[in-house]
Amino acid sequence: MDSVVEAPVLAVLADPTRARIIQLIRDAEGGRAMVSRLAEQLGLRQPTVSHHMAALHAEGLVVREPEGRRVWYSISPDEADRVTALLGAPALAAEEPDWDRVVDDLAARYHGVFSRETIARYLTDSRDLLAARGPAPLLASRSAAFTTARLDDLHSLEQPAGTPSVLFVCVQNAGRSQLAAGILRQLAGDQVIVRTAGSAPAAEVRSVIVTALDEIGVTLGGEFPKPLTDEAVRAADIVVTMGCGDACPIYPGRRYLDWDLADPVGQPMSVIRAIRDDIYRRVRTLLEELVGTPGP
Amino acid sequence: MDSVVEAPVLAVLADPTRARIIQLIRDAEGGRAMVSRLAEQLGLRQPTVSHHMAALHAEGLVVREPEGRRVWYSISPDEADRVTALLGAPALAAEEPDWDRVVDDLAARYHGVFSRETIARYLTDSRDLLAARGPAPLLASRSAAFTTARLDDLHSLEQPAGTPSVLFVCVQNAGRSQLAAGILRQLAGDQVIVRTAGSAPAAEVRSVIVTALDEIGVTLGGEFPKPLTDEAVRAADIVVTMGCGDACPIYPGRRYLDWDLADPVGQPMSVIRAIRDDIYRRVRTLLEELVGTPGP
Repeated sequence: MDSVVEAPVLAVLADPTRARIIQLIRDAEGGRAMVSRLAEQLGLRQPTVSHHMAALHAEGLVVREPEGRRVWYSISPDEADRVTALLGAPALAAEEPDWDRVVDDLAARYHGVFSRETIARYLTDSRDLLAARGPAPLLASRSAAFTTARLDDLHSLEQPAGTPSVLFVCVQNAGRSQLAAGILRQLAGDQVIVRTAGSAPAAEVRSVIVTALDEIGVTLGGEFPKPLTDEAVRAADIVVTMGCGDACPIYPGRRYLDWDLADPVGQPMSVIRAIRDDIYRRVRTLLEELVGTPGP
Repeated sequence: MDSVVEAPVLAVLADPTRARIIQLIRDAEGGRAMVSRLAEQLGLRQPTVSHHMAALHAEGLVVREPEGRRVWYSISPDEADRVTALLGAPALAAEEPDWDRVVDDLAARYHGVFSRETIARYLTDSRDLLAARGPAPLLASRSAAFTTARLDDLHSLEQPAGTPSVLFVCVQNAGRSQLAAGILRQLAGDQVIVRTAGSAPAAEVRSVIVTALDEIGVTLGGEFPKPLTDEAVRAADIVVTMGCGDACPIYPGRRYLDWDLADPVGQPMSVIRAIRDDIYRRVRTLLEELVGTPGP
């Protein structure tokens, strides 16, 4: 994205009436509204609202949908994400997740491996853990993903696959551990199982971390901050702690490494890049020890 | 996120001076600035700028960092993503990706499988394909991820692993194919290899699709829209087309299915949910045929 291109959208929404119109359309039934109804809601004359609509339409923020002699306006799908960022998520857009359905789907996936009861218990526990610090984004899908990682770890304890596994643990699971995990996945592919956790997980991986990874071609994938759980530690061959040493339970038979790294929180991009490259070198050495991957 | 909580941030930034202050701080060296420098840049008196800073600080948009008798201001890390959404990405935040380094890393990953030259060729081609329609978000990491998927497909043609693979193709690779792929990954775990493509890929998966998936506990993961490539079709056992039938090359030995589904583009959430659930039933039936997964 380019800040020069984006500027007009900001300018249009800096007008409180236009920002309110966008909000009303977005929250209207079916996500669309007519000028007559908007005028009523705003207490403005129809020609005034039509004037605002023309400006919003010219900026590409709304799309027109004629129906006979009337015209519906809705948010341009291309701008929906920006509108959400500006106005916050719509109050009633997302339905309450259907948790039973999630359990059914995971029960199909783990048929013959885990019972429906075990899956339901882990899903509830994972949801509670992710929501423990307040409203959590994408709670249902992340709870399900957290559950599958935990069940896979449990399964690997019973039937070890022989693939080495590494668990990276930092405080927020939003910076150092995500950098390390992304880099190891990039270098190792499916030769190593990679997990992450935090002793006090944040709500979201910071966008500066996503950028720092992208600069070296590494994707965050669908990763998100999550707390440390018992089976994650038990399933790991190597546990790498970064600034959270004491929070990590010690089990025999695992190798523990403590990496002394600066905390990227609140640092400018240049420092974050230096931390990333420090982590890169350590991950590369670790991988060479694990699977003997040669240097470039 | 809650629109009631978010409203004050929007209100603060609707003030053009405050929006400009945020932009100046964000683009300053090290991402921080002092009142004296801001006053100079804005052509305002220091007490006026201090007044604005107090408001921005009260709203949590900026953090203070005292240094002796002076105070640095920077964007609150918690608000960085919102500020980016409002102002667009910073002009110089991301460095040009180090493409050679990306090739080195993938060469380490595919050591003994693909040569550095082959990897470099696929990476360049993947980057060109993703950037063909203009500036592409997260270009380096997505090019690398696209490359690894393509190389894995190539490898599977030489050494079939026995895992069935399904390729979902729609027009934009941003709606129907992503819904189908997310649901199949959720239900099948690693029993099926799942790929997606579009005949005219969009820049980004729409947030309504992320929401529709989240409601049923399915994560999008790191998926992104990408074009149809030859090896994706060749590596697939089953190719499911959705609204793009003619764009897909036909190879012998593959099974082709054409699913007649409504296009979710521009539809309200209720219609998108109905499309999602239609796809869900089809995916479930397909999976039962493939691996005999039992119903719940």
